[in-house]
Amino acid sequence: MMETVLRGPSSEVRIGPGLPTVIIGERINPTGRKAFSAELQAGDLSRVARDAVAQAETGAVVLDVNVGAAGVDEVALLPRAVELVQQTVDLPVSIDSANPAALRAALAVARGRALVNSVNGETAKLEAVLPVVAEYGAAVIALCMDDSGIPATAEQRLGVAEAILEAAARYGIGPEDVLLDPLVMSVGADHTSGAVTLQTAHLIRERLGCNMTAGASNASHGMPERDLLNTVWLALLIQAGVNAPICNPLKNGLAVRAVDLMLGYDEWGMAYIRAYRAVQKASAG
Amino acid sequence: MMETVLRGPSSEVRIGPGLPTVIIGERINPTGRKAFSAELQAGDLSRVARDAVAQAETGAVVLDVNVGAAGVDEVALLPRAVELVQQTVDLPVSIDSANPAALRAALAVARGRALVNSVNGETAKLEAVLPVVAEYGAAVIALCMDDSGIPATAEQRLGVAEAILEAAARYGIGPEDVLLDPLVMSVGADHTSGAVTLQTAHLIRERLGCNMTAGASNASHGMPERDLLNTVWLALLIQAGVNAPICNPLKNGLAVRAVDLMLGYDEWGMAYIRAYRAVQKASAG
Repeated sequence: MMETVLRGPSSEVRIGPGLPTVIIGERINPTGRKAFSAELQAGDLSRVARDAVAQAETGAVVLDVNVGAAGVDEVALLPRAVELVQQTVDLPVSIDSANPAALRAALAVARGRALVNSVNGETAKLEAVLPVVAEYGAAVIALCMDDSGIPATAEQRLGVAEAILEAAARYGIGPEDVLLDPLVMSVGADHTSGAVTLQTAHLIRERLGCNMTAGASNASHGMPERDLLNTVWLALLIQAGVNAPICNPLKNGLAVRAVDLMLGYDEWGMAYIRAYRAVQKASAG
Repeated sequence: MMETVLRGPSSEVRIGPGLPTVIIGERINPTGRKAFSAELQAGDLSRVARDAVAQAETGAVVLDVNVGAAGVDEVALLPRAVELVQQTVDLPVSIDSANPAALRAALAVARGRALVNSVNGETAKLEAVLPVVAEYGAAVIALCMDDSGIPATAEQRLGVAEAILEAAARYGIGPEDVLLDPLVMSVGADHTSGAVTLQTAHLIRERLGCNMTAGASNASHGMPERDLLNTVWLALLIQAGVNAPICNPLKNGLAVRAVDLMLGYDEWGMAYIRAYRAVQKASAG
């Protein structure tokens, strides 16, 4: 069984088939958050600590950290944000940047064993990011797209995944340390896109055995009742083999625990009940 | 591809892999409904017509009809209820009784092509119900349990399903007219029971190719946030191959359409949008 092991300052998170689903909390990211973007531009990281606590309380066990707003010097700010997150909560971080120098600077200060978000099959991207991942002994998220763009079919995405794993191996990074992302597109734009994502996940699980991540919310873009669609989508993704989804635990944390309960990953339903109480407490507070 | 075809007075419903999920509406059933039970005991069927309309408006395309309350003469009342349902809505019925004489009486008045709910692998049950199903050219729901009770493992449930299909074949009923039920138990009582159900569904889909039904709500019995659990459970069931779940469309109809949208069974999301509007209208009215 292929296990991806991540570590915080003194905690360990294991991702693997048959293990409880790992929530990677997505909130520490200025995309679409105006106030947070402005704070980051002013060097104010106070919201980062609050977001870290709120996500940890609602079930995230890995925290994505992204400070990529316009006008922000990520090389300076990303390591500060990573340090602050790990001073606040004892969790592994997913270091999220398109800037290899910022990734390197953040990996240098990250405690434990981090995840890097992300590479894809583009040659330039692989050559820029994989050496950094290897140097720091990190794990890495890999999107199933390449220099030709986003493949239309599941078989083609599998081909990209295989090429990425080969490239990773050349840098000494094993398949257990590559979290593949089967790519989630909007079903509103193309009603077959959910099926292609799920089919890609099935193929990756069967043929490569790798652990997987995916975004929970892109698929429902532009449709009504997005919470319902995201809940359903998480269930389908997890059953298809995506065992470390990136989502907002304040919104989707209980749904992930519900899926694990129904799939038999939650002995006595203890994790579900705990998550239910955390949600009750959060909405009361 | 194995297709189950049901008919109403002038409508047709097809159940098959790759086709939109068929909702069998469960509401016309006195179990746990005190007022409805009392009405049935008094021969009052007014609620039956209201429940038929409400379920048709929220996405049911087959209606289960069960009048089995204490003190009710099902042989007299079940055909009346079936006739009333089909005078009210143009849909196929699922005739739901443990009494073979009542099934026969209801089948005699049902218009189109009905579903019989249900047989299981018990010898006495098969011998009592299958001849009636065959005589009226109906389809039948078959629960994967037999004289030894409910099998603990998916492989054993598959074995019961195979035995039922063999028995049905002896009466001239083909596998396309047997809707198998992989059996849903409470995850609160046994946290592995959801996984056994889903594994049974996978095996049935792979090895027998039959269409399947299942109850949407038993699994969440005794747990908090049952609506969330039922939504997640429907998604997992449908992805595993259950293409005609029995549920309450007033509660779960939109969730089923959400699953179909994410699985690519809903071109342009038209059915999902229609269901969304129906729910909005129902909650406004």
